[in-house]
Amino acid sequence: MREAYHDRLGDLADHLADMCAMVGEAMDRATRALLDVDLALAEQVISDDIKVDAARSSYEEEAYALLALQAPVATDLRTVLAVIHAAESLERMGDLALHVAKTARRRHPNPVLPEEVRPYFTQMGKVAVALANKTQQVIRTQDVALAKTVADDDDEMDNLHRHLFTVIMDKAWPHGVASAVDVTLLGRFYERFADHAVSVSKRTVFVVTGRMPGSDQYDI
Amino acid sequence: MREAYHDRLGDLADHLADMCAMVGEAMDRATRALLDVDLALAEQVISDDIKVDAARSSYEEEAYALLALQAPVATDLRTVLAVIHAAESLERMGDLALHVAKTARRRHPNPVLPEEVRPYFTQMGKVAVALANKTQQVIRTQDVALAKTVADDDDEMDNLHRHLFTVIMDKAWPHGVASAVDVTLLGRFYERFADHAVSVSKRTVFVVTGRMPGSDQYDI
Repeated sequence: MREAYHDRLGDLADHLADMCAMVGEAMDRATRALLDVDLALAEQVISDDIKVDAARSSYEEEAYALLALQAPVATDLRTVLAVIHAAESLERMGDLALHVAKTARRRHPNPVLPEEVRPYFTQMGKVAVALANKTQQVIRTQDVALAKTVADDDDEMDNLHRHLFTVIMDKAWPHGVASAVDVTLLGRFYERFADHAVSVSKRTVFVVTGRMPGSDQYDI
Repeated sequence: MREAYHDRLGDLADHLADMCAMVGEAMDRATRALLDVDLALAEQVISDDIKVDAARSSYEEEAYALLALQAPVATDLRTVLAVIHAAESLERMGDLALHVAKTARRRHPNPVLPEEVRPYFTQMGKVAVALANKTQQVIRTQDVALAKTVADDDDEMDNLHRHLFTVIMDKAWPHGVASAVDVTLLGRFYERFADHAVSVSKRTVFVVTGRMPGSDQYDI
């Protein structure tokens, strides 16, 4: 009985790692849709989001069932609760990729990004996808040292986001207000995506060590 | 034993309702700080946020302890899990009020809001505080009908947010890009605050009825 229980718990962690892969791929495609003004790719991210939502519901139900049927304690209880939290964060990460894709679609066939901010989004996209992939590895391996590097990547995202603002806020910004608003919100979507990845990694560390790393509040 | 358990569960719901009151008051003060260019009020919201974070940690720990010690099932299990989710959403609502206050502080002694968007923020502030108060009532009374009116208030917030964008995006916007960026992010903070209130209400309805109302995805 306990054996079957631990199998189910292991399956749940695997499913969660799969969900990381899904949202990482969504953000990769959404970024390419944005940079390459690729409507088909944007549409694909938009139509695939329902799969992320379904995955979250399904894993949450499975976690609830484990709690109700098995009444786990100690580390097992923490693991199930971490799964519930992580599935919520991952669904949000999927929503953020969706917002990026919708922005690309809204302005099509015009590009959303003025030339001078393209390098920022190229790099923010890379960091976001790397974060999703690392988070996947953290869940699969429960590697606490790797979880710490997730926080470093998030620092890089915060730096990119801050520099992006100085570009938009520059008096010489020639692209007008509507473009600045788009770029502002897009920047926020990437920053929030990274924050959620950090949150999932921290919860995983909590499961392994019993202690939440750092006391940093994540944003919004 | 079960009696004491239900007392603790009731206390937990009360604490959560208190947390709604805290974040409603934070958003009320943050909005006044923004509209009245009141630095002292902004500072108060910023320094009080730590209380919201502490409340969340404390209620989450209490919920974990209930799960570990009592292994609740059925409605009791759902209630404890709703508390864990709700505490997370309420902490975010506190963070959003904090972001509004920090924006007011960053631009002080200049006002953040150009004259023509003041009415939007006056009204969005009112709706946000009303939502926090209603959510508090939904938790205290478990009134499913009241929970439905929370969704209506959220529709009003979405409409205000949409109209606000048409004002910023208007070619005649005379306040420049930096101001548009501030107003864009502020609008987003209010919209997200409302979305989180809806999420808490929906979870409460789920506890009462066993069914999540609607299938609407909340944003970001």
